[in-house]
Amino acid sequence: MTRLELVQEIKRKQSFLCVGLDTDLEKIPGFLRGQEDALLAFNEAIIEATAPYAVAYKPNLAFYERYGSAGWDILKETISKIPKNCLVIADAKRGDIGNTASYYAEAIFNDLGADAITVAPYMGEDSIKPFLGHPDKWAIVLALTSNPGANDFQYLGNPPLYQRVVEKCVEWGSPDELMFVTGATRGADLAHIRALAPDHFFLVPGVGAQGGDLDAVCKAALNKEAGLLINSSRGIIYASQEEDFASAAAKAASQLVDEMRGYLSDL
Amino acid sequence: MTRLELVQEIKRKQSFLCVGLDTDLEKIPGFLRGQEDALLAFNEAIIEATAPYAVAYKPNLAFYERYGSAGWDILKETISKIPKNCLVIADAKRGDIGNTASYYAEAIFNDLGADAITVAPYMGEDSIKPFLGHPDKWAIVLALTSNPGANDFQYLGNPPLYQRVVEKCVEWGSPDELMFVTGATRGADLAHIRALAPDHFFLVPGVGAQGGDLDAVCKAALNKEAGLLINSSRGIIYASQEEDFASAAAKAASQLVDEMRGYLSDL
Repeated sequence: MTRLELVQEIKRKQSFLCVGLDTDLEKIPGFLRGQEDALLAFNEAIIEATAPYAVAYKPNLAFYERYGSAGWDILKETISKIPKNCLVIADAKRGDIGNTASYYAEAIFNDLGADAITVAPYMGEDSIKPFLGHPDKWAIVLALTSNPGANDFQYLGNPPLYQRVVEKCVEWGSPDELMFVTGATRGADLAHIRALAPDHFFLVPGVGAQGGDLDAVCKAALNKEAGLLINSSRGIIYASQEEDFASAAAKAASQLVDEMRGYLSDL
Repeated sequence: MTRLELVQEIKRKQSFLCVGLDTDLEKIPGFLRGQEDALLAFNEAIIEATAPYAVAYKPNLAFYERYGSAGWDILKETISKIPKNCLVIADAKRGDIGNTASYYAEAIFNDLGADAITVAPYMGEDSIKPFLGHPDKWAIVLALTSNPGANDFQYLGNPPLYQRVVEKCVEWGSPDELMFVTGATRGADLAHIRALAPDHFFLVPGVGAQGGDLDAVCKAALNKEAGLLINSSRGIIYASQEEDFASAAAKAASQLVDEMRGYLSDL
């Protein structure tokens, strides 16, 4: 999916919502659990119900890998159910070099059929570049994350590590092939990252359940193409534990998109 | 596998060799490629031939994930063929937080049956701790890597990032549950890391093919239990492209272990 296609979809749906498919057998409605393929049935229903509101979906690989090759198959089948006009982000946080990274790209882009992969920058340039230059595909690099542990290393140095990561990645990858992960809880720093990367998209987890504030994120980092993908997982996919879980997810997605709409009026 | 068991194995074999199973269909001997399960047949032969010399095996997950769920099955089957007295390191370089990290631990430790997983520290404490506290299992944290890109971020700050990672990880995980990845090409810095983490094991890739020097690594970082796992992949597993590939691998492993023996005489 190209940047132009993504921006068109954002305009069409007046939404920059990404739905996180952190699907957990222990958290889906009880009545589904007995079913063979419960995870897939749940994902399909969530995708169908939320597709009018979401421009992206982000399955989290750990939630599937825990079931080994069966989980990998469920993930692949889930991805095949996501409408083609939505960006599919494999939240894999891979970070290795050279051939190894190329094979991760092959696994995620070719075998799974995802459009994008989240990548950890610790190993530097040779761990990022193998994910770039794949037409219509994306590397989404961890810059500043929303978890407490982000304080352990990401602010180290002057300029801090996260800034150095953004500066280097902007050299390595254009806004057509590289995005950043930036936590929703990092208001002032978000504005700083936006100044360093005016045209790159940011994938922003942490709105809602993790305490981030949509208004603060938009004020800090919205750009002329939106430039944001706001991820919500639990707040949407577990909106109800009953038979209405899919319509409840649609309602939760719709409410978040209603909030987004106000920020998109100039687009 | 406990630290005591690992050290006993090192003493028994007079070896701290880890064989990297970066098995690549394009690089295994041509006559095997026609075979269904060529990768597995190759891995089994390599494991059987090198087991007298190796104390650890390190399959690199990307090389299997590129084949999707079929690759995951080959990896699992490969791991089941590794003798129980060898440490199995899943070179996965995962790095995510909380539940997600716990599910990666489940995938690697339970589903695959590996003893250890390589982990990237970028997200901090909550991305490392979920891999600790699993009896007989290990987190192996990237500290200072041997690739050129290591210079992009790992030396940033004063003290540099890699040092901060080691200092923090030593607080989070004991030498019974946490190791470090330290590149073989980083002589003086290796000695520095050893000073910060006197009892932790280091997994050291980059001897041989990547230009690292066994003597320099041992002088910088050997401790009273060896404290090192030296990884060699290509130099061993692709030692021959002919029908003698397994015995050639054994010979290459044996030669490396002969070199190691000199450093272990006090053990």
